[in-house]
This record gives sequence, C-alpha cells and structure tokens, in this order.
Amino acid sequence: MLKLFYTAHTCSLATHIVLEEVGADYSTVRIDFGKTEQRSPDYLKVNPKGRVPALVTDRGILTETPAMLVFVAQSFPASKLAPMDDPFLFAEIQAFNSYLCSSLHINHAHRMRGPRWVDANDAAAIAAMQRKVPESVGACFELIERDMLKGPWVMGKRYTICDAYLFTLAQWLEADGVDPARIPRVLDHRRRMSERATVKKAIAQELV
Amino acid sequence: MLKLFYTAHTCSLATHIVLEEVGADYSTVRIDFGKTEQRSPDYLKVNPKGRVPALVTDRGILTETPAMLVFVAQSFPASKLAPMDDPFLFAEIQAFNSYLCSSLHINHAHRMRGPRWVDANDAAAIAAMQRKVPESVGACFELIERDMLKGPWVMGKRYTICDAYLFTLAQWLEADGVDPARIPRVLDHRRRMSERATVKKAIAQELV
Repeated sequence: MLKLFYTAHTCSLATHIVLEEVGADYSTVRIDFGKTEQRSPDYLKVNPKGRVPALVTDRGILTETPAMLVFVAQSFPASKLAPMDDPFLFAEIQAFNSYLCSSLHINHAHRMRGPRWVDANDAAAIAAMQRKVPESVGACFELIERDMLKGPWVMGKRYTICDAYLFTLAQWLEADGVDPARIPRVLDHRRRMSERATVKKAIAQELV
Repeated sequence: MLKLFYTAHTCSLATHIVLEEVGADYSTVRIDFGKTEQRSPDYLKVNPKGRVPALVTDRGILTETPAMLVFVAQSFPASKLAPMDDPFLFAEIQAFNSYLCSSLHINHAHRMRGPRWVDANDAAAIAAMQRKVPESVGACFELIERDMLKGPWVMGKRYTICDAYLFTLAQWLEADGVDPARIPRVLDHRRRMSERATVKKAIAQELV
C-alpha cells in the first residue's frame, strides 16, 4: 500500500489529489513543520532532504512531485492521467510540471524560505527576496495564462496530472501578492478544480 | 529532424550529450547570451521563457531539461537510457533529474542570476545570495555523493539520462566554490563521463 508523507498547504497536495483521482489504496502521515518534524531523525530516514512530500511504495521511497505524479499515474494506467505511450504529449506534461517545480514553486519559496539562499541572519537580503515575489511569481502565472494552459485543462481536453499540480500551486498566489485579475483563466481552472470531489476529499483529509 | 537551441556552458549540454548517445539525426543553433539572443523576438517565438535549451521536434517545441531528456530517450528506445516500462525505476530517474533542476541548478543560479529573485539594483542582496552559493550548492552535491549516486552510474550499473545531466551540472562546482575533495565519487563520475566519445563530441561542437 502507498503511504504519503504530507504537510497541509504545501505541494504534497498535488500527489494527494492524484492518489484520490486514481482510486489508490493509500494512507497518509502528517509532518508538522511547526515542530520541524521534517528535520527529525525518523523523517530524515524517509527523506534525507528533510522536505515533503515523500511516497513510500512497495519497492522503496520516492520524492520530488514531478516524479511522484508520474509514478502514481503510471501505476494506475486506467486513470489515463499521464500518456506514457505518446512521447511528445508526455514530454509536454513533463515540461509543464518541471516549470512548476523549478520556476513557479522556487519563486514562491523566496517569500518563506529565504535562508535557503542567503544567510539566515541577513534580514535585509531576506526582505529583498520577499519584495520580488509578487513580480516573479506573477510572471510565471502570466506565462501559464498566456502560453501554457490550453484549456479547459492544462493539456487541453484531457485531464492530467498537470491539473492537480497547477491547482496546488495556485492556492498561494494571493498570499504571494499576485493580482488574480491578471490571470482569469488560471483562476477559472482553480475554481473548477476546487469543485471536484477528489480535490475536496484530499484537502479535507489534510485539514482534519 | 531534431534541432537543439543551446548555449555553451549551460544545462543544454545535457540534452546535447543524450542526442549523441542515442545517435539522433539533429542540428544545433547557438544562442549567444553575450548578445542577449535568448531575449530576441525570434527566439522568444521558439521559447517564450527566454532561456535555453529548447528542442524543435516534428510535433512541436519542447523545453525544460528533464522533459527533453526523457523525450529523446523514449524516442530512441533501443538506447535504453530511460526505462519507461518500469514505473519505480523510471520514477527514481525522474526524482533525480527533478532534484537537479529544482535544487542544484537553482542554488547554482543564485551566483549568476540574482536579479531573478531580487531587484537588479540591489547589489547587497545579490552579493548576499552569491555568498551562500558554496554552501547551498555544496550541500546538494554532498547529498548526491552520499545518498543518490549509486555507482558506477547514477542509477547503478545502468547508464541513463541522469548521468548526462549530473555531468553537466558538475562542470560548475569549482566556480561555485564547492570543495571537490568533499565529493570524490561525484568527481570520479565526472572524470569517467568526460572520457566518453559522445561527451567529448558534444562539448567540442559547442565550443567551436
């Protein structure tokens, strides 16, 4: 059985939603950032990176959202959430998810995780990074709005793992200072996603 | 025919090496950062993100190294550079590549690309980010050394797309201020990669 280590309000929600979408038999373990459980010796045995998410499988532990999303989709091929038999379409899915993890999520992280990139005592530099977040995260969402979100779903008519991932990161855009009025298609996607039973269930489980 | 847009000394080398490894029929187009060609109107039509690499295929244009590496490997299945039929092993490959793009490469980018994350005129904040690079990039390489590089190749006995990607990013570690003595297995991997004919050819083509 699959076991997801998650923290509410983080990118682990994307994998959680996809586990619901495919109808997987899975359990969850909450990691409390308030108690820095992500750095506890027990959790570092699960994920030496000290971050969520992590997915325990019968064959070992996986990390990194883009990898986990494909793994779940590929393990439940009837879900058709990732087209492994079409190299170009699959690459488009991968490119989208890679952009989310290495550009959008990274820009967002400069608001809360500044000490990854400057000395933790350098308040001025941390504040300088925070000031840039509305612009840098906003630019990512505007690129997604204009060039990447095909509609109605990210990849067009086909609902894929990209939709769960975009929805997850779109939770944070107001707190990041992005003007929602500039990205109406992203907002409409987020609203439609929030109405799915699978999404409601995953979120409710995390907020218990 | 495939066409790779590249810039020397960037992560586009990873895809270039894999194109050589699979024996693809491909051409290359150099994008000159010195002339900011990555932001030219013509190139923005290829890649609206204004970055390299980009790969023109018969079905459209792909970006993002993890996606491009899998696409090339999957398009040349005889190369066996990515095991699409083994979901767990494939996920391990994806997790490794995702870590490189969203952690190692990002930490490295804080040395040269500071204005992505702070105001371009904030010299103090840019310098603060640069000072952190030896530590943040070093921590990534130490995790790879200790937990991720199985040996002799990244995924063990099997040579995969991960090897071309790790080799590419390992080009920069001395300039990033990482002490090579702390990561002997990464250094040995880099040396063995540099002796491959495919790697030599890809590098030579970029430096013409």
